[in-house]
Amino acid sequence: LAVRGKATHRDTRRLNEQLVLRTIYGRSPISRADVARLTGLTRTTVSDVVDGLLAEGLAEEVGVGPSTGGKAPILLRVPADARHLVGVDVDDDKISGVIVNLHGEIQRREAVPISGRDGERALADLDGLVDRLVAGAERPLLGVGVGTPGIVDTAGGVVRWAVSLDWRDVPLADRLRVRTGLPVSVVNDSQAAAMAEWTFGRHPGSQGMVVIKVGNGIGAGIVIGGQLYQGESSGAGEVGHSRVVPEGARCHCGSRGCLEVVASVRAAVARAGALSAVYPGSVLGSGPVTFESIVEATQAADPLAMRVAHDVALPLGRVLGTIVGVLDISDIVLIGPMTALGDPWLSVVTDEARRSALPILAQRTRIHIGHVGPDVVELGTAALLMNSELGLALAA
Amino acid sequence: LAVRGKATHRDTRRLNEQLVLRTIYGRSPISRADVARLTGLTRTTVSDVVDGLLAEGLAEEVGVGPSTGGKAPILLRVPADARHLVGVDVDDDKISGVIVNLHGEIQRREAVPISGRDGERALADLDGLVDRLVAGAERPLLGVGVGTPGIVDTAGGVVRWAVSLDWRDVPLADRLRVRTGLPVSVVNDSQAAAMAEWTFGRHPGSQGMVVIKVGNGIGAGIVIGGQLYQGESSGAGEVGHSRVVPEGARCHCGSRGCLEVVASVRAAVARAGALSAVYPGSVLGSGPVTFESIVEATQAADPLAMRVAHDVALPLGRVLGTIVGVLDISDIVLIGPMTALGDPWLSVVTDEARRSALPILAQRTRIHIGHVGPDVVELGTAALLMNSELGLALAA
Repeated sequence: LAVRGKATHRDTRRLNEQLVLRTIYGRSPISRADVARLTGLTRTTVSDVVDGLLAEGLAEEVGVGPSTGGKAPILLRVPADARHLVGVDVDDDKISGVIVNLHGEIQRREAVPISGRDGERALADLDGLVDRLVAGAERPLLGVGVGTPGIVDTAGGVVRWAVSLDWRDVPLADRLRVRTGLPVSVVNDSQAAAMAEWTFGRHPGSQGMVVIKVGNGIGAGIVIGGQLYQGESSGAGEVGHSRVVPEGARCHCGSRGCLEVVASVRAAVARAGALSAVYPGSVLGSGPVTFESIVEATQAADPLAMRVAHDVALPLGRVLGTIVGVLDISDIVLIGPMTALGDPWLSVVTDEARRSALPILAQRTRIHIGHVGPDVVELGTAALLMNSELGLALAA
Repeated sequence: LAVRGKATHRDTRRLNEQLVLRTIYGRSPISRADVARLTGLTRTTVSDVVDGLLAEGLAEEVGVGPSTGGKAPILLRVPADARHLVGVDVDDDKISGVIVNLHGEIQRREAVPISGRDGERALADLDGLVDRLVAGAERPLLGVGVGTPGIVDTAGGVVRWAVSLDWRDVPLADRLRVRTGLPVSVVNDSQAAAMAEWTFGRHPGSQGMVVIKVGNGIGAGIVIGGQLYQGESSGAGEVGHSRVVPEGARCHCGSRGCLEVVASVRAAVARAGALSAVYPGSVLGSGPVTFESIVEATQAADPLAMRVAHDVALPLGRVLGTIVGVLDISDIVLIGPMTALGDPWLSVVTDEARRSALPILAQRTRIHIGHVGPDVVELGTAALLMNSELGLALAA
């Protein structure tokens, strides 16, 4: 039996600070009186807390609002550049990083190509990239957020298993904390992306969201009630190894017919090669095919490319149908390189997802392409840090 | 932006009452002083609240504990029979109801056979059953809980769609509230079952749980952080229509190859018929087969029955693998008629689930048969009412 006790005095003070900061951030420009009204805190408490925020530079006064009888109230806001954050996306082929402000505006970008598989080298490249970003920061840094593929223990800051990077039990947060002296948060890349779409993606009316990142790997991030749902061991959303083709080809995970084997970017390239003899007139020809050439050919409605888009979309749609049935959630957002296939792919994913869940549930789920763009993982790690360090949360 | 304000005075009083009651319920026998220590409330507040609970019969004094220097403290508990509840399970072929006390002990059972498909008749049968149970109650009733298949809007108490009963938008809670004058809670049957396994099932160390009910229908209930997760429209866990066989047989939902078409009790019977020619020596013979005869034949390791158990287990295991990947949850609990197939079925479900999720996640998930038994839906509706009406919650 879990008994929750009263909050301590110190907890209360911190919660009040976060409540006031969150209110100013979400409703600015706003007066102290309106903050008190919205939060239920007394005017005195609000004034005390605001004095502290002004001193820390986390709030500023920005003029006066309309008078409601007495003196016109002074309005407050959180300056976008009060703090900056470092956000990093560790991908198969490159590590990208940004410096971003509290409004999610990118201030600077850095990237370094990596060859997956050499885990030590990738770590050294990550160190270098973080060093350069931290050194170049022009405002106080709130922290460093890193998104990586694989299973990440977010509480411990440890990458438990990232196959494509050959990382096993890498204590990434400790490593970067010692290096930079800053708070560090490490999270699965799809989970970070989900937080970014939720926070910065402008999806009006969304109550919950599953964000699926489809590249060479396939993973999902889940936002329920405005919070990232990570499951019991931070592994929630690891759908890349759902077995969708019982006797399918081997997967690097040891099983067969996993979603990643039939619905990933690599699967699309393999499928184009396997089908080229069936479509002799295809602009893709009969030689080696790249994913970029498939994307181009799809835009020209090339029959082979259209068939490939269809074939890799079907199993993904089927897994999405199951996700809709399990979670009953209003938005499924697709991101990652595969989305470049556009409508010939998206329409098949959507139709198959609707055929793979009870109609009464499937009808209300919207399936669409993400809004945030290529910095989605970096922005997601920043959103998580803003939440953990300052209690800031933007609703969708 | 959602701003949560302070609790009002009235809210605080109700929360304190629930906190004290929950503490006595979960830790009894317990002294007022220990309640104060565990909850962080003052001794005075605890004494006031306990006086109210004693007056309502929700607490009683049960002797004295060891003295810690001063006067030996009086110990408190919640009497198991302080309130009784009515719990009802509306199934395909019968409606069952119980009267149960606050410890989940069954006081009385009633059942009435129904022929599904006649929705009006089923409603009348439900009314009659509830009337008899309420009339026979020997203690004050806390309320009536009803579990039904299909999509149930729990907040509104409306059965939105129960295919097997031909119920569409039936305002069941209002109907029974008017009839009985008691609080009524209506919930999907698998969701209720999940709450029962969590609350009464004794699954030590469980952090979260997915309970899958496999009969003619297949549905899941999900408990995360001790709470029933119902999704945005109370539909969470509706996995019966996950499309597992792309070109499979038609389902009553309009799609093809749904999990219910290949993994339900009905599917097992159909599969036995289809395979009987291949196993001429089977004890099941070549005539019409019942599910009961398959269960018996499985216990005798009859080859046809074993094959049927295997074939209906595989697609279920595959969907469970996806659920493990999505939710990252420690316990999957199987309940319902299909579990009678025992180990030949369970072992295939378990193996295929492990092959259908990333090993690092699948390893930590336990898959087993439920502990609560045939009253699981009734007990689950009671657990939900105890929680909504009194704030009582037993942790696993």
